Amino acid sequence: MFDKVLIANRGEIAVRIIRACRELGVRTVAVCSTADRQALHAQIADETVCIGPAPTKESYLDMRAIVSACEVTGADAVHPGFGFLSENAAFARLLQRCDIKFIGPDAESIERMGDKAQAKITMKRAGVPVIPGSDGVVRSLEDAKAISREIGYPVMVKASAGGGGRGIRKVMDEQELEKAYTAAQQEALNFFGSAEVYLEKFIENPRHVEVQILCDEHGNAVHFGERDCSLQRRNQKVLEETPCPSPQMTPALRQKMGEASLAAARAVGYKNAGTVEYLLDGEGNFYFMEMNTRIQVEHPITEMVYGVDLVKQQIRIAAGEPITFRQEEIAPQGHAIECRINAEDPAHGFRPCPGEVSSLYMPGGPGIRIDSSVYAGYTITPYYDSMIAKLIAYAPTRMEAIAKMRWALAEFLVDGVQTNIDYQLSIIADPNFIAGDYDNGYLTRKLEQ
Amino acid sequence: MFDKVLIANRGEIAVRIIRACRELGVRTVAVCSTADRQALHAQIADETVCIGPAPTKESYLDMRAIVSACEVTGADAVHPGFGFLSENAAFARLLQRCDIKFIGPDAESIERMGDKAQAKITMKRAGVPVIPGSDGVVRSLEDAKAISREIGYPVMVKASAGGGGRGIRKVMDEQELEKAYTAAQQEALNFFGSAEVYLEKFIENPRHVEVQILCDEHGNAVHFGERDCSLQRRNQKVLEETPCPSPQMTPALRQKMGEASLAAARAVGYKNAGTVEYLLDGEGNFYFMEMNTRIQVEHPITEMVYGVDLVKQQIRIAAGEPITFRQEEIAPQGHAIECRINAEDPAHGFRPCPGEVSSLYMPGGPGIRIDSSVYAGYTITPYYDSMIAKLIAYAPTRMEAIAKMRWALAEFLVDGVQTNIDYQLSIIADPNFIAGDYDNGYLTRKLEQ
Repeated sequence: MFDKVLIANRGEIAVRIIRACRELGVRTVAVCSTADRQALHAQIADETVCIGPAPTKESYLDMRAIVSACEVTGADAVHPGFGFLSENAAFARLLQRCDIKFIGPDAESIERMGDKAQAKITMKRAGVPVIPGSDGVVRSLEDAKAISREIGYPVMVKASAGGGGRGIRKVMDEQELEKAYTAAQQEALNFFGSAEVYLEKFIENPRHVEVQILCDEHGNAVHFGERDCSLQRRNQKVLEETPCPSPQMTPALRQKMGEASLAAARAVGYKNAGTVEYLLDGEGNFYFMEMNTRIQVEHPITEMVYGVDLVKQQIRIAAGEPITFRQEEIAPQGHAIECRINAEDPAHGFRPCPGEVSSLYMPGGPGIRIDSSVYAGYTITPYYDSMIAKLIAYAPTRMEAIAKMRWALAEFLVDGVQTNIDYQLSIIADPNFIAGDYDNGYLTRKLEQ
Repeated sequence: MFDKVLIANRGEIAVRIIRACRELGVRTVAVCSTADRQALHAQIADETVCIGPAPTKESYLDMRAIVSACEVTGADAVHPGFGFLSENAAFARLLQRCDIKFIGPDAESIERMGDKAQAKITMKRAGVPVIPGSDGVVRSLEDAKAISREIGYPVMVKASAGGGGRGIRKVMDEQELEKAYTAAQQEALNFFGSAEVYLEKFIENPRHVEVQILCDEHGNAVHFGERDCSLQRRNQKVLEETPCPSPQMTPALRQKMGEASLAAARAVGYKNAGTVEYLLDGEGNFYFMEMNTRIQVEHPITEMVYGVDLVKQQIRIAAGEPITFRQEEIAPQGHAIECRINAEDPAHGFRPCPGEVSSLYMPGGPGIRIDSSVYAGYTITPYYDSMIAKLIAYAPTRMEAIAKMRWALAEFLVDGVQTNIDYQLSIIADPNFIAGDYDNGYLTRKLEQ
């Protein structure tokens, strides 16, 4: 096991990782920007190194500052959390060169999954269902037209290096294609430094369903079922649950998606925790979207339903330990829902509301889990995300989990900043949500009503 | 199911019950004293009735005030929680006469278990192992001497109507007996209104191990294993865990104790949730101590390890629903520890420290459960117990649960009042505790070192 792990992140995920290290008897190093000196992760770690000013490029994204912090403190491993440098192959490679273990897959796996167009080709070859499309980067508008005619409209134009919903255009017919193609290229260039785009068939009313996997360095690999993350607003996940409440989701489909996900991992020699994201249509067809080569924000719901500590598993796997789970022992038990509680103003387009949390009361009791780094008196800065807490409700059945989430949201009190708690309450009480009848566009349509 | 439940209690257990009602779709009525208007339970219930001034006799123990509150609000059931009127047969009977359901066993069961000397006779007849002793009330000092000679010193003199460690005397030899007998009688009279006492053989270094049971109104009964509550200070439980870490505790002993507990329940026609308390000696012999005919403070650890919501089960059973668990499906999974976090001063004999909790940070994350009714800005009054929170850690193994509790205690911050958090940390880090090597006298001996 490692002696000392540096956590190259902030906020609740940094706190989550520090706690996992504690349980493994591993010492912890937090890094923080000057804006984060009062942040919880900086307070509870064994050691804290300030690595630069508030802008992320000058601190949490500064690879050399982080490697220096490792050297100063003697950390022998780095957990990147999510966001920031977590899917940066150059960072993984730099650490390797410095003989510091990156707690995640190796640089090659990150790269092969990071290039979304290339990843799709790899997946198709590995037998993972993919959305019909251009099979790689589209070289010209003429090519785009020919492919679109073949797969049929509507189609999507997507940035090859994309993510987070940036650089995506839906095209209804050939007339719209030229404008969308050019716009997507421009946005891709602006956001990701590469103008490469690819084409995909548009799937009608799909759900976002993703599969959690774990692979060790000894060839063992298991999956922990799915998470339904269809409830999104502007491609940002709002509420996640597992199991997926679609009538299509059966043990057989779960197994099929799990096996596809393990095939995806094998195809890139994947190690550590990862998530394979799919679109699931109303007929139970699923299509590979992308693989996130890191822990995800919504990992707690899988932990609740499968009785696994994914962050501890990540650290153990990186330390060379084998997975002790056997696939046939892994089955969902009960139901978990996560609501992301953010400091934002639903009345004004959900704009972030940084500021001091003057008072804070978070619910507790059976089946309630809270992952947070916010405390009363803490000031949410404008530099980073606006998350206050991940509120997770776990119960034997979906209906009980919904009932639990409802009182937990009603009890949750935050003073000093606007929050989306009432918005989450409106989702949890929504008849379509309760019926499990929603898809990726549901929240957008609901807000437009 | 009930329409509206009145919770005849306060503090964290009242909050716990209100939340359970919410999940069952049952409306809630809180009662509070004038000192508790700012208490959380009074704030989160659907309705709140102030039933009198701070002294418990004039509010939480005032049966007529509570029945009036039921009538005013139309509550059709009362959950008594623990303490206060929870084991008061007259209260159960009064509610029955008013056609209000008491969420607990019927008055006769309460009475038969409430008289500790009579209960022991009943248990002996039912085949439940009991401590050798006087088989009922001792009529005279001469009888006490004869019985003590027969069962052998040391012996214990105990108040027949006792509980909570009051009215108990240990006697090493015949010389000490007269004084102890008289003193115990006097204390019994003062505390419980009855001078009746009984005798029991003193068991060497026993552990307090109790078994959780559930019985419905249709003849179904199941047990949910044991809780080890040996870590006590002045007969007040400090830290509880399940499973019991004694090397004697095996699945076979668990089954034996469980079956004895169900026999105990059957012997008094018991319905609803209850706990049968035993002394467990170093050879794996167990002896009935008493049955608590109510939910217990430490019920959460059983809930974590057995995946059951005991309070919801209580309400369902009282509403006439059958238990859906089958004994053969019930097995412990993982390990849970509860630390009682109190506002008290370990440096001054653990005296209660009422006062305003000026700031409060409670840990969260995977496997952490907090049952509390305290919030930042809340003033802990001197009228009631000094509990701040029950901090529960759950993990797959005991060692992981201990590691989790350790960081959770270290993170827990309370300003404004003294707490026993450092004391709990000293227990969780104690080598004997970690080895599971402790008994009922351990904390007292540790403090005397």
